[in-house]
Amino acid sequence: MADTAEAETQSTTKAELDRVRAGDTRALARLISLVEDESPRVRSVIKELLPHTGGARIIGLTGSPGVGKSTLTGALVRAFRAAGGPGARVAVLAVDPTSPFTGGALLGDRIRMQEHATDDQVFIRSMASRGHLGGLAASTPQAIRVLDAAGFELIIIETVGVGQAEVAIASLADSVMVLLAPGMGDAIQAAKAGILEVADMFVVNKADKPDSQQVVRDLRNMIALADPVEGGWKPPIISAVAVRGEGIDELLSQLDAHWSWLNSSGELARRRQARAREEIAALAFAALRGRMAGRVEELASQVADGTLDPFQAADELLGRPTD
Amino acid sequence: MADTAEAETQSTTKAELDRVRAGDTRALARLISLVEDESPRVRSVIKELLPHTGGARIIGLTGSPGVGKSTLTGALVRAFRAAGGPGARVAVLAVDPTSPFTGGALLGDRIRMQEHATDDQVFIRSMASRGHLGGLAASTPQAIRVLDAAGFELIIIETVGVGQAEVAIASLADSVMVLLAPGMGDAIQAAKAGILEVADMFVVNKADKPDSQQVVRDLRNMIALADPVEGGWKPPIISAVAVRGEGIDELLSQLDAHWSWLNSSGELARRRQARAREEIAALAFAALRGRMAGRVEELASQVADGTLDPFQAADELLGRPTD
Repeated sequence: MADTAEAETQSTTKAELDRVRAGDTRALARLISLVEDESPRVRSVIKELLPHTGGARIIGLTGSPGVGKSTLTGALVRAFRAAGGPGARVAVLAVDPTSPFTGGALLGDRIRMQEHATDDQVFIRSMASRGHLGGLAASTPQAIRVLDAAGFELIIIETVGVGQAEVAIASLADSVMVLLAPGMGDAIQAAKAGILEVADMFVVNKADKPDSQQVVRDLRNMIALADPVEGGWKPPIISAVAVRGEGIDELLSQLDAHWSWLNSSGELARRRQARAREEIAALAFAALRGRMAGRVEELASQVADGTLDPFQAADELLGRPTD
Repeated sequence: MADTAEAETQSTTKAELDRVRAGDTRALARLISLVEDESPRVRSVIKELLPHTGGARIIGLTGSPGVGKSTLTGALVRAFRAAGGPGARVAVLAVDPTSPFTGGALLGDRIRMQEHATDDQVFIRSMASRGHLGGLAASTPQAIRVLDAAGFELIIIETVGVGQAEVAIASLADSVMVLLAPGMGDAIQAAKAGILEVADMFVVNKADKPDSQQVVRDLRNMIALADPVEGGWKPPIISAVAVRGEGIDELLSQLDAHWSWLNSSGELARRRQARAREEIAALAFAALRGRMAGRVEELASQVADGTLDPFQAADELLGRPTD
């Protein structure tokens, strides 16, 4: 019985995945919801779609509210679609780690990106944290896998804000863009949050505003402070006026240059390995926490009684055979 | 060969423990050093001495530098020795979670407590963090077990400062005393650090100073804000002038009252169970971290290649047989 049920679930997953790979947007949206809801089915879904992953190029975009992330994303999607031809598919995953609900900013984004709403080669989805701490950290990598398996060439992960959570999400990308704008004291804030360390390129938006050259200078100074690495990548600073599409061509060519470097230097493999490591560790800790809930009380009372030593109790919790 | 070596180690441990239980202070100091150094022998030592634990009453004392912790500890040791008769043995474990080395304060403590230096029923030892974060969290419970097995009736854990680390160490005790003094803004600081929640009693030292009644009033207001629990313990506030021994009798009788309540209410068993739970969890996480170091790279490259899903990788890391 259990085997039949499992086989059935598997064939359902397979059928779903086939629809998703054929470009069925509603089936794709359902799979992402499954991931976002942390459904128990996520495991089997990920297992099934895993062989189809690894082909997408993942780009992270982060920056404080108001710097123009959505406008830039929109311009980037447009440019990529134009350059890549009709078969080039792009997905945008807008992640808000700070808000439990998809708030005004992301709703606004979606309205602004309506020009792509009728383009079925472009998929836009927002994910919010639903109040469950650490939930996004676990579900975002799976959402990326779903989009990757669905055949999108380019996946843009857009996060709102500059903070630790944003750094974590940005580090899920192959290339990380940090967007700044004049008059927001952003460079300093980004430096504090450690976002400069993960940036592969900086985009100074609203370059037509008077203070933008100051932001570029601040960034240049900060980059100069970092130790240069032999054969390493030096983050370029790109000035843009996203709302008028200015600087987007340069951004696209810098992204291509970074992609070439990632591949030729072996850095892509290193980054993906590091990401896998982080993900496994997070899942193992979560599983251990879950396992503890059931078993730990029993072990704790034995330790409290002095009939079991705490080291052996820890071993038993980890399922290791003890001496 | 390995069995012989292990048997030899075991008999050495047994012999050591016999000496410790017979009151050999140097053997005891060596065992505590073993624990402090996180020696690989700790496991077998703890296993051996576990059946002899559970008899000690553990009292935690915390407070900011300068409130008079050592003076109070000295007075408490004196009073306990006087009340308990010649057989009543007391151990003091002074733990400094903030400093990697035993600094001036603790050295001063030891000088001030010299009156007990010739009393072989009193054992005084300080432990510092040795720069290894989390080291004290792991080694302090083991040091307490060693002292417990050594037959001390009363173990006083003294921590310097009021902060998260101090709260963690305080929660290793059956009864937690928080020491305050006038003119140090301590009550507010203690409230911020969450130390008020773990306090079983408050001692306002230097009660002969003009502002001490204000500290008592502040504390009373804070305690009043907490929800009373049916049959629960309401933390008393004891005024003391430790340097003159004033208030120590009341403190001792409040400690006895708390001890009776701990036993009659079942709270002692609950606390010890909770402590065991925390300890097992901490050891399991540490073991998992150690295990990861070796195995995770291999699993991560399979996940990065798409030949293994991250959930299965996490299972394998935890040593659980996977489907």
